[in-house]
Parts: sequence; structure tokens; C-alpha cells
Amino acid sequence: MNAFVDKLVQAQQRTGSLVCVGLDSDYDKLPKHLLKTEDPVYEFNKQIIAATKDHCCAYKPNLAFYEALGPRGWETLKHTILEIPEEIPIIIDAKRGDIGNTAAKYAEAIFDDLEADAVTLNPYMGFDSIEPFLKYENCFAFILALTSNEGARDFQYLESMGKPLYMHIVDKVKQWNDDENLGLVVGASDAEQIKQIRDKAGKMPFLVPGVGAQGGDLAKAVEYGTANDGMILLNISRGIIFTSKDEKFAEGAAQSLARYNERINQVRGEAVPAVAAEEGE
Amino acid sequence: MNAFVDKLVQAQQRTGSLVCVGLDSDYDKLPKHLLKTEDPVYEFNKQIIAATKDHCCAYKPNLAFYEALGPRGWETLKHTILEIPEEIPIIIDAKRGDIGNTAAKYAEAIFDDLEADAVTLNPYMGFDSIEPFLKYENCFAFILALTSNEGARDFQYLESMGKPLYMHIVDKVKQWNDDENLGLVVGASDAEQIKQIRDKAGKMPFLVPGVGAQGGDLAKAVEYGTANDGMILLNISRGIIFTSKDEKFAEGAAQSLARYNERINQVRGEAVPAVAAEEGE
Repeated sequence: MNAFVDKLVQAQQRTGSLVCVGLDSDYDKLPKHLLKTEDPVYEFNKQIIAATKDHCCAYKPNLAFYEALGPRGWETLKHTILEIPEEIPIIIDAKRGDIGNTAAKYAEAIFDDLEADAVTLNPYMGFDSIEPFLKYENCFAFILALTSNEGARDFQYLESMGKPLYMHIVDKVKQWNDDENLGLVVGASDAEQIKQIRDKAGKMPFLVPGVGAQGGDLAKAVEYGTANDGMILLNISRGIIFTSKDEKFAEGAAQSLARYNERINQVRGEAVPAVAAEEGE
Repeated sequence: MNAFVDKLVQAQQRTGSLVCVGLDSDYDKLPKHLLKTEDPVYEFNKQIIAATKDHCCAYKPNLAFYEALGPRGWETLKHTILEIPEEIPIIIDAKRGDIGNTAAKYAEAIFDDLEADAVTLNPYMGFDSIEPFLKYENCFAFILALTSNEGARDFQYLESMGKPLYMHIVDKVKQWNDDENLGLVVGASDAEQIKQIRDKAGKMPFLVPGVGAQGGDLAKAVEYGTANDGMILLNISRGIIFTSKDEKFAEGAAQSLARYNERINQVRGEAVPAVAAEEGE
């Protein structure tokens, strides 16, 4: 089994959670009292991680929020990554896509320098923009198929040869998946599409954004995403990390995560396993 | 006129060049003697810029090659940008594309922190992934329409409603271009497509990769790209900066650039204007 998938399965079993916490740690939205610390975004992330690490199955820092900080942002991200326990997989949300020799450099940045477990990629430029990432042993990449934003309607639903563009991407990703190190980003804005994509994609892991602040239907996303023994991670960013902006923001994040876990596990028809509660001190 | 376009027009007139020098300054390909300097990539770029600045119309650093260097890479890029004369436009090759609040952060990184004149973007996620960049006064964005790599065949040519996906992108970009701050990336691997896209896109600036190391047909790219008074930048990266790897690498780059300028200007039917030679000391 791919090393990322293995880590993810274990993290989901251990915590009983399908939630990936998105570290979209926007400097402009941080609790005010953190702004006087030396590295406010790191301080924020450190407390969020400490409060949520026993009850989520992955973390997903989005590179944009670190790059906006300039040279220091990359340092902040590296320090943040050191706070994440080894047994929890890290997905770098990068949505990169470029020709081969350039893609190889992005892969270096993400797998060698940041030592991430997985990455998100944009498939528009085709296989040679994906391939350099797959050369990393133990690597895993989630390919954008269908996104949950309004602009998804501009191109992703265009019909060609009887199926929408995003289904062409699903088909190609299946073809490219000899080493079982590919998954799909499948937005939750329209649950019927999750069903359609799951029917085609087999058990392949789905990273599902759009169930938090973006308002997609959580219950249906879980039901359809986990059909056919499919594996899903429900990414929630703002809906967890920016729940409260006072000194108890980390507690607020933990409470929000607990509510999501509860709602998700109601749909799954199972409670959070007792072992998770024990480990969660 | 958009500030970037204005700067570009003047740079093309001043230098007589349509060439954009791609600063894909791969650490692993640097001349060996630079590796003992404090910041080899910066040292390389500084010398390349000094040797080429009077004979090219733009520079295009590709973020991947800087991000691969970790936190230090962003510093290297900022120092490099300071070496580029104010009157030469800088295009950051980023190919970003993400939902609105995230795209806004990438825009901040590229226009506020790096102070670039233009950026390349991936349109797969639609208008809301492009819009935050357009909110920057004087900003300019080149949207990927057709790329010159092999993988371009995977999705970009899919036919929908009687036209290929890349033409749907061209049509949308035209719609989004109220402020005349959008252009297109149009790969040179198949010159017929450049013709087809120019016919549809009016004068809109094209950033044309693929005529250097990637081997596209330079003459046809120039002929078709400049039809209808269209504006083009021919990006050449490896074909200029890595021409020679000894101590005279910068001279080698200048000579390669001069050869490209000559070949391009033969097609354009005009010599490099005398004024450029004078200014070029």
C-alpha cells in the first residue's frame, strides 16, 4: 500500500475522523493577540495543531497563505510542519501544473524541502505535468477533477464525447494510477457529481473540499464519497480554524472539529471509536 | 493603456526584441564555478540580466526553480528582481489557480511582495480564480490557453460544442477582459493553432513558450502571432540561459539572444532599430 494511504488509513482508524484540517492560516484573519508574537502564523498553527491533532486524520496547509508572507512564509510553513506529529499525513495544497522540468522542481520543493506526504495538482497541462511527482517513492497526488467554487461551471462541466471535462480527468487519472498513488479532488457543491465520480473511480481516495465555509452538503458528500468502500477526506479550513478569534481560538477550533466529526459519524452510522477518545487524552 | 502593456510596448520598441528571457535558473544546471558563491542562483541571474537587458523585452522567472531552494529561494528571487531595470517588465510564471480567497493570497505574493508586472494563471477553476489578480491596478495576467508540452493533448484539445477546450478558454478570457489586462499563453508546438487563436483574440498579448528548447516553429509563431497587429512575447528559457556552462555563460546567453532576435526580425521583415543599438551600449 502507498505510504501516504497507509498513514491515512491508520489516522482515520485511530481518530475516527474523516476530517482534514486546512491550514489556510491567513495572517489578516488571525486573533489580534497573536500579532505581537514573533511569528504569528506559526504560533496560530502550533496551537491549532495541539488542539486538533488527536481528532483529525490529516492537515492541509495551502501554500498561498505562506507565500503571501514572502521569504519568511516558507520558514513559517516548515516550522509548522515540524509541529505535526509524524503519524498524521500532510497534504500540501499547491494545485501546481507545469511542464516536466518545471514540475520536477515543484516536486522537489514539496517532497524534498517540505517533506510532505501528498500534494494537490492541476491536470490542465496533462500527464507530463503530473509524472515528476509520481517518481517520488511513497508520494501521493490528488488531481483536481471537480472543484466547489462558482467558477467550476466555466470549464469543468463542458461536455465532450458524451461526458463532462471532469469525467475525462477522472478517466485519465485512473489510467495513470498504476502505482496507486493518485487520488482526486472532488468538490462537494453538488453531491450527485460525487456519486457519479465515485461510481467511476473505484476506491481511489477523494479529497473533498467545500463542506465547511463553502456550504456543500456534508451528509451526501459522506454517503456518496464513502460508497464502494471509497476513501474520503473532508477538508475543512475556515470552518474550523477561524471559528473563534479570541484567546480561546484553539479551543473553538477543537469544538468545531468535534461537531464535524459527530455529524460525519452520524452519517457513517458509527460513533467515534473508544480508542480515539483514550488516545486523545 | 494597461501599465504592463505600456512598459512592454516601449521595451519592444527600444530593444527591437520580442524575446522574453525565462529565468528558469535551475540550481542543478548552473556553471560549476558559481557554486562557491554565496547565492549561486542570484549570481547567475545577475550576470545573465547584465548581459541581456538591452536586447530583450521582458524577464520571466519561473517560481518552481526558486521554491525548490526552500525559504532562501524566495530571497534569491527578490534579489534577482532588484537586478532587473525598472523599464523592463517582469512576468512571474506561476500558473496558479485556486478559489477566490486563496487566489487573493497568491496575488498578494506576486504583486505586493515580489512587485511583478504580470503573472501566468491556470484557468481550470474559472473566473473566481482569476478575478483577485485583476483587482490589482496595473496588473496583467496571461491565462493558459494552449501549452506546448506533450501532455497538452490530454485535455486541451477535447472538442465541446464544436470547438476545442482551449478555444473555450480564449472566448472566456475575451469576455473577462473589460479592463484589457488579460493575455494568453499560446504554445508554439503547432503554429496553426496560434493562427486560429490570433484570429479570435484580436490584438491581445500572447506569451508564446516552446520556440526554444521545446522546438516549436519560430518563423510561423512570429508570423501568425503578430497577425492582426497582435502583440507577442516569445519566451525562451534554457535556449538562452544555459547555452554555455563555463565562465563565459553570460556572454553565451547574450549571443544566443542575439541570434534569436535576428531570426525573429528576419521574419518580421525589419532590422533591430538603430536606436536599440545606441541604447544598448
